[in-house]
Amino acid sequence: MHKHPLIAELITIAGQAHVLTHDDPATDLSAWENDWRKRHQGRALAVVRPASTAQVAAVVKACAAHHTSVVAQGGNTGLVVGSVPDNTGQQVVLSLTRMNRVRFTDPANLTMTVEAGCILQSLQEHAARHGLLLPLSLAAEGSCTIGGNLATNAGGTQVLRYGNTRDLCLGLEVVTAQGEVWDGLTGLRKDNTGYDLRHLFIGSEGTLGVITAATLKLAPQPAATLTALAAVPDMASAVQLLQLAQTQLASTLTGFEVMGRFALSLVHRHYAHLHLPDLWATTPWCVLLEISDAESESHARTMLETALGNALEAGLITDAVVADSLAQAAALWHIRESIPLAQAQEGLNVKHDISLPVSAIPAFVQETDALLADHYPGIRLVNFGHLGDGNLHYNVQAPADADAAAFLRDAEHAVNTLVFDNVQRFGGSISAEHGVGSLKAATLPRYKSAVALDLMARIKHALDPAHTLNPGRMLVRR
Amino acid sequence: MHKHPLIAELITIAGQAHVLTHDDPATDLSAWENDWRKRHQGRALAVVRPASTAQVAAVVKACAAHHTSVVAQGGNTGLVVGSVPDNTGQQVVLSLTRMNRVRFTDPANLTMTVEAGCILQSLQEHAARHGLLLPLSLAAEGSCTIGGNLATNAGGTQVLRYGNTRDLCLGLEVVTAQGEVWDGLTGLRKDNTGYDLRHLFIGSEGTLGVITAATLKLAPQPAATLTALAAVPDMASAVQLLQLAQTQLASTLTGFEVMGRFALSLVHRHYAHLHLPDLWATTPWCVLLEISDAESESHARTMLETALGNALEAGLITDAVVADSLAQAAALWHIRESIPLAQAQEGLNVKHDISLPVSAIPAFVQETDALLADHYPGIRLVNFGHLGDGNLHYNVQAPADADAAAFLRDAEHAVNTLVFDNVQRFGGSISAEHGVGSLKAATLPRYKSAVALDLMARIKHALDPAHTLNPGRMLVRR
Repeated sequence: MHKHPLIAELITIAGQAHVLTHDDPATDLSAWENDWRKRHQGRALAVVRPASTAQVAAVVKACAAHHTSVVAQGGNTGLVVGSVPDNTGQQVVLSLTRMNRVRFTDPANLTMTVEAGCILQSLQEHAARHGLLLPLSLAAEGSCTIGGNLATNAGGTQVLRYGNTRDLCLGLEVVTAQGEVWDGLTGLRKDNTGYDLRHLFIGSEGTLGVITAATLKLAPQPAATLTALAAVPDMASAVQLLQLAQTQLASTLTGFEVMGRFALSLVHRHYAHLHLPDLWATTPWCVLLEISDAESESHARTMLETALGNALEAGLITDAVVADSLAQAAALWHIRESIPLAQAQEGLNVKHDISLPVSAIPAFVQETDALLADHYPGIRLVNFGHLGDGNLHYNVQAPADADAAAFLRDAEHAVNTLVFDNVQRFGGSISAEHGVGSLKAATLPRYKSAVALDLMARIKHALDPAHTLNPGRMLVRR
Repeated sequence: MHKHPLIAELITIAGQAHVLTHDDPATDLSAWENDWRKRHQGRALAVVRPASTAQVAAVVKACAAHHTSVVAQGGNTGLVVGSVPDNTGQQVVLSLTRMNRVRFTDPANLTMTVEAGCILQSLQEHAARHGLLLPLSLAAEGSCTIGGNLATNAGGTQVLRYGNTRDLCLGLEVVTAQGEVWDGLTGLRKDNTGYDLRHLFIGSEGTLGVITAATLKLAPQPAATLTALAAVPDMASAVQLLQLAQTQLASTLTGFEVMGRFALSLVHRHYAHLHLPDLWATTPWCVLLEISDAESESHARTMLETALGNALEAGLITDAVVADSLAQAAALWHIRESIPLAQAQEGLNVKHDISLPVSAIPAFVQETDALLADHYPGIRLVNFGHLGDGNLHYNVQAPADADAAAFLRDAEHAVNTLVFDNVQRFGGSISAEHGVGSLKAATLPRYKSAVALDLMARIKHALDPAHTLNPGRMLVRR
């Protein structure tokens, strides 16, 4: 028996092979201990990998009995340091990746019930094999898990049409902080029999319960998907183009991404082989539009070309290309998805994942750009994002001739404050889709009302009074 | 000054004219004290009608200080006795109807911010004046308020496409049980900065906070709306027709209602002037389909007729009519909406508002019909509802030759138990869209897990430990 009584219990629960510790100094747990962006190096007491809901419940119960906190983890692709242990060596990482079964597929109900550790992309593929669409898509889909998507209410590129992860979830199974199992796995579109526990656990970042399974809403596969790239003269025109597209293309509009010229120039510079369409270089902003049509490709093409023609006539766009093939469409999306990587190639930068009312975006961008340029001459703005959802990745790159590391060290906090203060002034959110985690927990009180924080703290205290689950994340412990 | 100190305070807060009491025995408060279906006669200490959020907060604070409970009320059209006072004469009814301003309309963001007391229909009209659609529609829309819709997470006829009320709400303003104001009125599609307080208050039936305003999501008005009535040979075909329609019509499908022959026969008998299309009499089930198209009426007609043609070929329908005019479409909807009234004309009945996974509905209906017929020979089933959402109004009418009042007195509880037990066996909900209120609070523990009820009780205790807000509703007080 292991000398540490909790670890001995965890081994009894999950089996020797699935409880990893630092007993052997050669054991490398860094994949579970360090975060995706390498901003944090944690140290765990143990990493435990249960295979069933009952095992998860037993693990939480054992940890609670030993006053040891539990950090639930899926694919560990989060961006706000929310699913890795602190550096005390006292926290248990509860990895859900072995719980990766699709429990039940119900095509006539357009649902599937899946375990938390399923990789998002494998679920997209599973749905596709039934002729159905799981409309959640994001950069990390090849390694993130659906449990993590739910715990953080992930966004992505199809929110405009299908909503955030919470909007795709009809039911949940959750292990509470006391190690009880709540079986809320319904496949119902309507259920008004109590407080919406589902929405409370979704997006709570593992601080209220551990999501072990979910019933997800699927959609029929569209008959055709088309992508276009349009040059717009300014952000106000981009917002008007969105309105035009929403009216004329209605819910066939499944993507509406904006990309600033400097962001595209970085892709051009660092990934020259991607061949950006010429129009990028002569316009301050490009918009990537995607439509998904239930009828046919020819119908979709007529719809999209008509809408773009109307936009051209109205002066909202100056030029556009519609992808001729799936390969060309994929190439356009690849450009969009390469912006964060190109930015990393260019050097260190300050990232912001903000949202605003769509109507406020032109003024926000104009005023915040000007303020930043004023405070930090030569600063470069890598601005792109899900304009259809009002979600910008409004990132700040050091001046070209500056020492980027020094700039970050000296200016990151002040840049954040300047940007976030402006976000708040325009009625926005300082975290649109990435969440709070450890990274923003201390920043939150500046932007969230005392009443809201107090309600959150009361809920945390009601469901997890001993702070067993992911303590200090989302809410600073009081 | 009024001799009752709380009433004196309420008068100071809201003004003499807006605090109604039984001081004068001639005062009739029954509009606020009795419920919509006349199943309950309450007696209030006072009805107070504040005009602002600050007044609502002051009212709640005063009531809490006097250990007096507060029952929030909108249009008082609820069906589960959730917004009327008990009969002790000790509760204060907080009527929100004077808070009826549209605070802000933001067409470019597709949102409007409105006060809780706005009548739903007036908000539909307000949105329409901006060329926009508030896609929430239900029978009581001429008198229900948006605050009540939010507090009960109302459903209706467009849920299939646009979701329940909670899915149409981006932000909330709420007065807490302590009389604090939470200003969560954002117009954001994405905001991951904490627990989803909005979804917790929505559907909590005034037991956790008083909703005073909301930011609602709007949609562009469709270019054309078309309605059809189709005869289907059995419920399994109706479910397959839904799948076909969802695939071929995608999100243009905005309505999918099922109506049993007996339900339609009551409309035929009691409202002969409504002229049911002939097909109703020769088929066990009719389906009412509605599509809303962004292109044109001719495009919509081609889409709908093609889909119905495919369904006919596949044997899923035996006949169909597509409305030729808006008047004809309205007439078809009028038939659907007349079922509850025709049923009331026929006599007393036992109503159920249940939901099931769509795939389970054929077997549920077959087995439950058979069980009821077995236990109660001659019983008549008025079955209709929002099949697209898995929501049936599965109502039970006494045998034609029975004394309906006696039947209800003797059998209502047993009929409920039989139906609800079967609902649970098929993974359904005993309240799809009407809620819990007082009517189902005592029934809930039979169908909701102890873990879920415990989580709900913890949340209630955390946010309203003194049980100031709508005590005994939703959760039986422990």
